[in-house]
Amino acid sequence: MHSFRNDYMEGAHPCVLEALVRTNAEQHPGYTEDSRCAAARERIRRAIAQSDRAGALARAGVNPETLQVEFVAGGTMANLVSIATCLRPHECVIAAPDGHVNVHETGAIEACGHKVLVTADPDGLPSIAGIDAVMKEHEYGGNFHMVKPRLVYMSLATETGLVCTAAHLAELRAYADEHGLLLFIDGARLACGLASPRCDATLADVCAAADIFTIGGTKNGALFGEAIVIRNADAGREFRYVMKQKGAVCAKGRLLGVQFDALFGVTGAQAGVAEAEGDEPLYLSLGRHSVAAALKLRDVLASHGFDAFESDSSTNQQFLRLDNATAEAFARAFDADIIARPDDSSTVVRMTCSWATSEDDIAAVDEQLSRMGDNAGRTA
Amino acid sequence: MHSFRNDYMEGAHPCVLEALVRTNAEQHPGYTEDSRCAAARERIRRAIAQSDRAGALARAGVNPETLQVEFVAGGTMANLVSIATCLRPHECVIAAPDGHVNVHETGAIEACGHKVLVTADPDGLPSIAGIDAVMKEHEYGGNFHMVKPRLVYMSLATETGLVCTAAHLAELRAYADEHGLLLFIDGARLACGLASPRCDATLADVCAAADIFTIGGTKNGALFGEAIVIRNADAGREFRYVMKQKGAVCAKGRLLGVQFDALFGVTGAQAGVAEAEGDEPLYLSLGRHSVAAALKLRDVLASHGFDAFESDSSTNQQFLRLDNATAEAFARAFDADIIARPDDSSTVVRMTCSWATSEDDIAAVDEQLSRMGDNAGRTA
Amino acid sequence: MHSFRNDYMEGAHPCVLEALVRTNAEQHPGYTEDSRCAAARERIRRAIAQSDRAGALARAGVNPETLQVEFVAGGTMANLVSIATCLRPHECVIAAPDGHVNVHETGAIEACGHKVLVTADPDGLPSIAGIDAVMKEHEYGGNFHMVKPRLVYMSLATETGLVCTAAHLAELRAYADEHGLLLFIDGARLACGLASPRCDATLADVCAAADIFTIGGTKNGALFGEAIVIRNADAGREFRYVMKQKGAVCAKGRLLGVQFDALFGVTGAQAGVAEAEGDEPLYLSLGRHSVAAALKLRDVLASHGFDAFESDSSTNQQFLRLDNATAEAFARAFDADIIARPDDSSTVVRMTCSWATSEDDIAAVDEQLSRMGDNAGRTA
Amino acid sequence: MHSFRNDYMEGAHPCVLEALVRTNAEQHPGYTEDSRCAAARERIRRAIAQSDRAGALARAGVNPETLQVEFVAGGTMANLVSIATCLRPHECVIAAPDGHVNVHETGAIEACGHKVLVTADPDGLPSIAGIDAVMKEHEYGGNFHMVKPRLVYMSLATETGLVCTAAHLAELRAYADEHGLLLFIDGARLACGLASPRCDATLADVCAAADIFTIGGTKNGALFGEAIVIRNADAGREFRYVMKQKGAVCAKGRLLGVQFDALFGVTGAQAGVAEAEGDEPLYLSLGRHSVAAALKLRDVLASHGFDAFESDSSTNQQFLRLDNATAEAFARAFDADIIARPDDSSTVVRMTCSWATSEDDIAAVDEQLSRMGDNAGRTA
Repeated sequence: MHSFRNDYMEGAHPCVLEALVRTNAEQHPGYTEDSRCAAARERIRRAIAQSDRAGALARAGVNPETLQVEFVAGGTMANLVSIATCLRPHECVIAAPDGHVNVHETGAIEACGHKVLVTADPDGLPSIAGIDAVMKEHEYGGNFHMVKPRLVYMSLATETGLVCTAAHLAELRAYADEHGLLLFIDGARLACGLASPRCDATLADVCAAADIFTIGGTKNGALFGEAIVIRNADAGREFRYVMKQKGAVCAKGRLLGVQFDALFGVTGAQAGVAEAEGDEPLYLSLGRHSVAAALKLRDVLASHGFDAFESDSSTNQQFLRLDNATAEAFARAFDADIIARPDDSSTVVRMTCSWATSEDDIAAVDEQLSRMGDNAGRTA
Repeated sequence: MHSFRNDYMEGAHPCVLEALVRTNAEQHPGYTEDSRCAAARERIRRAIAQSDRAGALARAGVNPETLQVEFVAGGTMANLVSIATCLRPHECVIAAPDGHVNVHETGAIEACGHKVLVTADPDGLPSIAGIDAVMKEHEYGGNFHMVKPRLVYMSLATETGLVCTAAHLAELRAYADEHGLLLFIDGARLACGLASPRCDATLADVCAAADIFTIGGTKNGALFGEAIVIRNADAGREFRYVMKQKGAVCAKGRLLGVQFDALFGVTGAQAGVAEAEGDEPLYLSLGRHSVAAALKLRDVLASHGFDAFESDSSTNQQFLRLDNATAEAFARAFDADIIARPDDSSTVVRMTCSWATSEDDIAAVDEQLSRMGDNAGRTA
Repeated sequence: MHSFRNDYMEGAHPCVLEALVRTNAEQHPGYTEDSRCAAARERIRRAIAQSDRAGALARAGVNPETLQVEFVAGGTMANLVSIATCLRPHECVIAAPDGHVNVHETGAIEACGHKVLVTADPDGLPSIAGIDAVMKEHEYGGNFHMVKPRLVYMSLATETGLVCTAAHLAELRAYADEHGLLLFIDGARLACGLASPRCDATLADVCAAADIFTIGGTKNGALFGEAIVIRNADAGREFRYVMKQKGAVCAKGRLLGVQFDALFGVTGAQAGVAEAEGDEPLYLSLGRHSVAAALKLRDVLASHGFDAFESDSSTNQQFLRLDNATAEAFARAFDADIIARPDDSSTVVRMTCSWATSEDDIAAVDEQLSRMGDNAGRTA
Repeated sequence: MHSFRNDYMEGAHPCVLEALVRTNAEQHPGYTEDSRCAAARERIRRAIAQSDRAGALARAGVNPETLQVEFVAGGTMANLVSIATCLRPHECVIAAPDGHVNVHETGAIEACGHKVLVTADPDGLPSIAGIDAVMKEHEYGGNFHMVKPRLVYMSLATETGLVCTAAHLAELRAYADEHGLLLFIDGARLACGLASPRCDATLADVCAAADIFTIGGTKNGALFGEAIVIRNADAGREFRYVMKQKGAVCAKGRLLGVQFDALFGVTGAQAGVAEAEGDEPLYLSLGRHSVAAALKLRDVLASHGFDAFESDSSTNQQFLRLDNATAEAFARAFDADIIARPDDSSTVVRMTCSWATSEDDIAAVDEQLSRMGDNAGRTA
């Protein structure tokens, strides 16, 4: 039975794995200073440029050819290195309460010395009003008895499946410029965010808005690895020193280059991804596939009466409130992830699709639910 | 032409790569909590137990079945997580001046808040006398105006190719016990250290001596990854919290499990490593191969008159002092690594062998040197 | 005109100043290792023992004669050294949202690497329910993807003038014991908390409850200085190393000894403090004086119709909501501190009394308010 | 018997104490934002300007009127706040091996995340050659596998009584400018350094050379306190945030203002210091007095045959090598500080003079030595 526990259950997409196998015997210098990484960097820059349908880069004065691109092994690492590079000792991060750096990284940012201030935004996306309330409380950085807010952390797709629009990205950028803030976008699930039907932003819009953002490979086809794109060269200067200090420089950096070269050098169409559009890179197509699978799953669940969705998720994760017994049945049947118990009688489960979730896997859920019997008042 | 620049130029040993390919489609839970990691942990424990020719484990009261084994992506990460877990704010590390954490990790230990004190030992291996001098200077931890020495950092094989014997390991352990110190052994090149003809210590001896030590995969057949063996459960308690905080927990932890399962589950003989002894795991055989290749290379170099070796290295790295022009010729011909310029006219180059260095590669050096003409007074 | 801005406007109480002058020419060794500090430590231990009306120390197994007492220059320093000494890298603090360490110390705790988690308690005092909700969210320390709660921070008197009772202290201690938590009590305004008519706890109750607590001198008669009482010797072991590392060891430590020797060696009655009870030390009597002055001030304010108190404060700080114009008049007339603007038309001012606030100062407020005209609907 | 243990045995110089007493009842706002601090800042700026005999400030483009001056309670605090403000995470300090921050501050700099690199300079003063060797080893900041040297730490007077000349200060500044380094001068004993007959530098020369330097009060007449002068506004920007975060902001900041106002507002002549020159501030005269006393003491010691001085000290500390028995006699008789045991039979003692050391105190040493009998081969 296919597991829907999360989007990092499998290894790599076959194209990525094939590239690793094909290049395995090559000798390359270390630390991402090799030709494979150079190629991957170039492909990422090109993908950003090509996605700029609305001219956001030019408006923001960004020359995509000069973007600095770095590679690290994992998401927490990408977040902490980026943020630690940007901040002076008394500066801090603003995030939504359920921002990943605030809750699920064991205080990684604080371990680098910086406080994480939270907005009152309930659903993971920092709003202008939420940020401004924090800024006001901290006197817009004018009171040395308090930390100085300096960097807004956000994800394009939140932990509950909401997404940020191009307009909201532009507003955040404008607010940041006005108030001397940096904007960091955690792209652990960037491809799914971009693929959401609710998200009209492109890679270029993200790049135009963020000072630094990441392109998550681990959850989108890579064996492991995240790319970090540094648009604000001053904020990210001497980035590799901090990478090294934090243990984030990969000795065999070529591994990351090879993977991102595959993800951005092959098109989704070439790789046979059904959802691929135009000549977009495999990376974006895999996001489309994951999201399409999750929305199909959502329909299947609803068709069986399981429609008490905790959030109006349009990404690759779906959140369902169930009575406790049904939640356990889901956990057994689909390896659904139990993530909260809002009250004594109900449980929230998460079901996640990935590039590896097939139509058959969704069909199997449909079939299994038919066997289990439709929902009739079993959700809270 | 084969590059002798370092021992992380290639991808993974074919056995490791094959295991990754074979298991790629499996679904596993994250964070090294999967069955592949469980298997790898078990194999590592067994390899330690089986290598205990001299009963060191029993003497030290170590039950190998209870050893905690963790996996992280890289060496700097393994070092900093291990050390940060062990130390309180005012405690510090003692290392030889050229200890990797002291010089080549961009202050990773200091970034965790801890000073690195250096002994006067010239060749990378902390001596009892060297450690004791530092301890004395710091009043054996009895002066609160100074940092309190708490952990000795060392590598089994030093940066210049020297190795630590079983007797020295035992002495260090005894000194540590007597003075309340912890002993951490950086095993980035553990396999080559163990394979050195000068080293009579086994994996079990290392385990009996160290509170925590690492088993480096990146430089010995893995695509990437280091195992961390925690013998002192108290010093390493709640290790995974610190791992997570430092970004060292691998989402697809199975990747590390699969690789170490291959390195310790297949024997060198099964994998066809010529130098394999008995039924030792592939991991140890690959170290043997690397060292054998390097000693053969050393002979070849000497046979052409290049015998001004900077150190009496018995591991997989050889260090040669050359006049500047010859050094550049070596760099061009063999991709030898230029690592020091001790004076205006001479250069030290490093040539490193790995599991991937073949007999043909060494033969090609021989041939090339014949073409270049033997050395006649060209070394300093 | 007397300023009511805060409780650190003046220098030292005359008895303290006199002691500093009298001992100025003495020669003493540094770093609080002198006889004056020894005397002060002894007097503090005795005051704790003598205040144990209810036998709390014996019940808690505390021998007051063995308490470790340290001295530092200021409150933020006392907090950060105490907390940094207690915590391992992944451990964190639980505090109420307006806890001083959470808001007004520029991220001092985070700069030591530790997250501050906040409860939902609205008024500065962490409740058992509030703490337990945080603990539950963090799986009682059982999820390594999140920080591990380890220390509860609280003040005996909150930032808004509420106080903690002996019963609540005992509950917090019991909860802490049950869940492996430490309890730290910030005593910057300890004397005022103890003197509050709402607080039935004594110095001994605080000591029996807290693992570490501070006795604030700066805001209660000293020129400067805080005593730190370490009841939990294990949590606070090697405390002076961390003090030194953070710059908290005073070279002329005798200054702190002399001051606390005066504050705890002279009785309030001897010093002529009108509010002194029995033979309590001057330190406690000064708190009584400050609180008595503030409650008298509260009555005076109310008698003129200014009774929109923001909190039911029973300590030395009173908080009044005024319309903006009146608030500015108060700021001008009494140097009242403007601390919040809850909405466009109203302002909250704080008026603080100290050991130096005289009856005449309160009478002058009365007179001035008479001149200004009573309040008639001018408060929000 | 007068103690020669160190220069912080007494309280404050009478003029400083008198100022504290005189202003004790004044009410002032906190955090050094009061009029006394403003006055002290102005006096320090003026003293710097007036000491500029050689036009160093103008040459360096420094307008003394715009210097930022901050006050903190102690020396370790002054050092760590200054250095932490200046450095990014991967940047580090260069110091001589016996630099105070390297040895005697319990790793305070490392606790802020920064490595301290040491030169090979034997006597506490970093030489250009010593710094350049460290810079070269670190590839002048061009190798991200190593820390990046960024700030040179030095004292005007070293731990062994040597001093830095105006010419050396200018050389250090020029080197720093050329290589992107900052220069921090620890002025814990600044007044004694300036008063040394071997030092031709003035306060202005120090200010022209350093990016940030401190003016130590604790060891030169103040009860406690150090002024920090920030010449490089960019390096020190938002300094007060870091001060607050590290617990260095004094609530009753006025205490520091009052003291430095006295030390720089009264002349040494007015205060009756015999060694005062011209209308120099008391602060400088007290340094002169301390040094004069120490040099007189040195003569007295030598006249009794005790002339095995460990260093050619021209400041207020003298270092004598004695046989062990004599060293103990000195410790008993003069409270001399035992600071080293270079070999089994000899001991180094330190005798320190301060503003409080009188002619009688020196005469008493003379007399006591006469009673003890002159030295005859008792030194090593």
